[in-house]
Amino acid sequence: MASIFSRIIAGEIPSYRVAEDEHCYAFLDINPVREGHTLVIPKREVDYIFDLDDEEYTRLHLFAKRVAKAQRQAIPCKRIAEGVIGMEVPHAHIHLLPIDKESDLDFSKKLSLSPERMAEIAAAIAAKFE
Amino acid sequence: MASIFSRIIAGEIPSYRVAEDEHCYAFLDINPVREGHTLVIPKREVDYIFDLDDEEYTRLHLFAKRVAKAQRQAIPCKRIAEGVIGMEVPHAHIHLLPIDKESDLDFSKKLSLSPERMAEIAAAIAAKFE
Repeated sequence: MASIFSRIIAGEIPSYRVAEDEHCYAFLDINPVREGHTLVIPKREVDYIFDLDDEEYTRLHLFAKRVAKAQRQAIPCKRIAEGVIGMEVPHAHIHLLPIDKESDLDFSKKLSLSPERMAEIAAAIAAKFE
Repeated sequence: MASIFSRIIAGEIPSYRVAEDEHCYAFLDINPVREGHTLVIPKREVDYIFDLDDEEYTRLHLFAKRVAKAQRQAIPCKRIAEGVIGMEVPHAHIHLLPIDKESDLDFSKKLSLSPERMAEIAAAIAAKFE
């Protein structure tokens, strides 16, 4: 069965899209830890990020770098933190989170944002994506 | 002034070395969150990871992928998690941590390991590095 992320890419499940190219997709985490918390995924469904071949792995990270640049321009923050855990969904994903201090990277603290605010944030990041 | 990581690379400050090539260096985090918790850094001192140019950034991540593979062979764990926070030391670094569950990635929980155990872990990972 397709992962929930593959179904998001296919458009079967809606997402707040931030950026997309031929091989990668970026969208807001639906349970954000920070405003602008984004997931970056390869379109090809691979569970463990280190099982991507070097080319796919490099492509994914370079795409994440571009997303991080857009996030930092769109969201007031000191920098973009990165996390790869991968225990919840069996489809490799990079978390990118705008943070101001180390303790902001706490995956146990979820925000509750309105759909309007989520759409606004996604659009703001998308507008800065190059 | 050189960062503490540049002084580690130069050998002025000792470290539990895990792997090294011309451009990158990997060593055990001295305040580990998990056994085998490793830091991967570029030898060139750059504060913010996303300020590395695409070539350096790619090189660092491909090096981290090789370290992660060695860690997973050397340390009993489900997978290797990755974190980039970068608020403590102004020299870009990727945390690589062997984990069994999501909550293992908690930077507020530090382990206390003996120098003998640290040396043993570093040697075990180094032996699997290709």
